[in-house]
Amino acid sequence: MYDGALGDLIEELGQLPGIGPKSAQRLAFHLLASESADVERLTSALERVKAQVRFCEVCGNVTEAEQCGICRDPRRSEALICVVEEPKDVLAIERTGEFRGRYHVLGGAINPLEGIGPDDLRIRQLMVRLQAGETTELIIATDPNTEGEATATYLAMLLKPMGLKVTRLASGLPVGGDLEYADEVTLGRAFSGRRDMD
Amino acid sequence: MYDGALGDLIEELGQLPGIGPKSAQRLAFHLLASESADVERLTSALERVKAQVRFCEVCGNVTEAEQCGICRDPRRSEALICVVEEPKDVLAIERTGEFRGRYHVLGGAINPLEGIGPDDLRIRQLMVRLQAGETTELIIATDPNTEGEATATYLAMLLKPMGLKVTRLASGLPVGGDLEYADEVTLGRAFSGRRDMD
Repeated sequence: MYDGALGDLIEELGQLPGIGPKSAQRLAFHLLASESADVERLTSALERVKAQVRFCEVCGNVTEAEQCGICRDPRRSEALICVVEEPKDVLAIERTGEFRGRYHVLGGAINPLEGIGPDDLRIRQLMVRLQAGETTELIIATDPNTEGEATATYLAMLLKPMGLKVTRLASGLPVGGDLEYADEVTLGRAFSGRRDMD
Repeated sequence: MYDGALGDLIEELGQLPGIGPKSAQRLAFHLLASESADVERLTSALERVKAQVRFCEVCGNVTEAEQCGICRDPRRSEALICVVEEPKDVLAIERTGEFRGRYHVLGGAINPLEGIGPDDLRIRQLMVRLQAGETTELIIATDPNTEGEATATYLAMLLKPMGLKVTRLASGLPVGGDLEYADEVTLGRAFSGRRDMD
């Protein structure tokens, strides 16, 4: 509906995930009214991300160097590798402060409906990495959904014969959640995974 | 949590209205994974908006010329001016196809709590415009909320002594809405504004 640059901007913003036509319009008017310096900081960050950010050659996490900070950190142990789908999962786990091993980012999950098979994920690179023989346990932390479960099952099938310990993150009720609102699959998992109280 | 360019981008995206930290992260990763050509179209549109888009010197609508397309259109009548708060309101009214007059964009509404008074709006420019004597009716189409009503009342007080017809958009039940879910103020307006049936 808008012509020219403003129309182009609304259209481009509307292509972004989670940004509908109304949000795109609101964002475009916000940016139009913003200080030029603020908008330049945004475009500059965007250009730097495209120019400088790449994927760690070891684990596949995002980095601006050849290897990410976690792979370069000698205090982090290669004995324990946590396998995740996406770089943002690395950050989520780092925030817990519970894990001192290293990561392997698959770059997605097996999804036959979208044509994503094991060869499309960084599984071959994981195999190469395991050949160094330093790793004893793999924690499969793919998402607790159909694709994540399929990927976890596939990886377990591949890795267990190599004599490695393969574990999966616990499924159950979210802490602070309400039992009444848990879906039946989660509640079923919480029952089957119940633990003795100390 | 992220360092470098990616962290900067997440922070800048998180400054935008309606974009929380999670959305900013999701958008940043989406942009990181996007084709460079797509990202360049976005940054280019953004740069062109900042460089080229300005406000119509007559009505205050957005334009890339000195005057907007509506003010330049000789088929649109200056006899009827619709006063709105923001440029996006012009687009909303244009979409109805019901209005063939011209617009005047105030650039906001009177809001004492945020320190926005009549002098902060384009009311002086409206007065100058009315001195040409071409205008006979003003339709006040500010938002149907406290600020919009205050602005409408102020404008009516200012304009009526000039011998101009001043009208306000009808308030009432939204078409396709459900009477049960209408708030009491809207329902009250719908009663007091009831019309004879044809």
